[in-house]
Amino acid sequence: MKLYQSNASPNSRRVRIYLGEKGISMPLVPVDLGAREQFSDAYAAINPRCVVPTLVLEDGTAIGEVPAIQRYLEEIRPEPPLLGTTPKTKAQVAMWERRVEIEGFGSVMEAVRNAVPALKGRAIAGPHDYEQIPALVERSRQRVRNFYTDFNARLADVPFMAGDAFSVADITGVVTVDFATKAAELPIRGEHTALKRWYDLVSARASMGA
Amino acid sequence: MKLYQSNASPNSRRVRIYLGEKGISMPLVPVDLGAREQFSDAYAAINPRCVVPTLVLEDGTAIGEVPAIQRYLEEIRPEPPLLGTTPKTKAQVAMWERRVEIEGFGSVMEAVRNAVPALKGRAIAGPHDYEQIPALVERSRQRVRNFYTDFNARLADVPFMAGDAFSVADITGVVTVDFATKAAELPIRGEHTALKRWYDLVSARASMGA
Repeated sequence: MKLYQSNASPNSRRVRIYLGEKGISMPLVPVDLGAREQFSDAYAAINPRCVVPTLVLEDGTAIGEVPAIQRYLEEIRPEPPLLGTTPKTKAQVAMWERRVEIEGFGSVMEAVRNAVPALKGRAIAGPHDYEQIPALVERSRQRVRNFYTDFNARLADVPFMAGDAFSVADITGVVTVDFATKAAELPIRGEHTALKRWYDLVSARASMGA
Repeated sequence: MKLYQSNASPNSRRVRIYLGEKGISMPLVPVDLGAREQFSDAYAAINPRCVVPTLVLEDGTAIGEVPAIQRYLEEIRPEPPLLGTTPKTKAQVAMWERRVEIEGFGSVMEAVRNAVPALKGRAIAGPHDYEQIPALVERSRQRVRNFYTDFNARLADVPFMAGDAFSVADITGVVTVDFATKAAELPIRGEHTALKRWYDLVSARASMGA
């Protein structure tokens, strides 16, 4: 197996952290986003959406999309579990991971991609060009603020995003906060004490350096 | 178990079709979206995102988000498989279901929610109000057209969205096409012969009446 990825890509980081938590080592093949290597014929043949990361198996099968990559790796290496262990906790992790992604991660991405000059004409990742929509930036930023407020309330009740156990939902959460802080100037605010407590706890894990 | 849902909700239909394919019966509890019942205290206690559908288990656990509901049901009732059967096919179904959802289903939803007068101030489903952005409508409609073109090419090579077997990716695909046709006047165009062949095949399944 090998992972095509970029150190500049938050979605790639979600997988790198996952690998660290699982103790899985594999070659990381860099895809140079600055040089638009994701649109090269060679990479498009691996991932027709022209996005990173992509996991390529020994038989050449290419798996794109972060949750799909994590699903594959969890199936072949169940321990330590990061996608739940019972029908109920598997569903709860899927639910909370998705909420963190839609409300948090996706909102930050949308805010950044519709604002950054370097992404003019590239407001949506993938093979097609879409113009930026300036009005979307503030709406997306408000969604990030609401995400912080909603998940601060959640984390006042439970230690981790999906409940009692650390999971992929926490990985997506940390990547969201770090990217929001760095690329959108939207750090966790002081009043969100439960969110901050969670962030300090999970971001101190060794895997998070990835 | 019971499913809180609405007959007017495309996301609810994704679960109803899934139940039909699996041969699972359970009470369907209607949530009246027209009367804003999803924002009632009673429903928000079940699903804090205030969206349908939600699966409520015998012990009271509430599972929201379509893929999470499907994951739970697949775990407790594996046959017939709709989420893959091996690590590789599970990952491939997850990948293609997600691509259909992001590029197709999500694009139609965004086009409709930012355009329909009845959804003014409600451009994004969930507990928070967001204004519609008119510029988003045409960009989203173009994404639906690109989805049709891209998946027409895919379905020229394979019989089903995720490859050789019918899966949840096909369910999301049919719901996308039907909703695009009905709510956004974006039916499959004549030149997309492979997509049309696929649609005619899968939409004829008994489950699709749901």
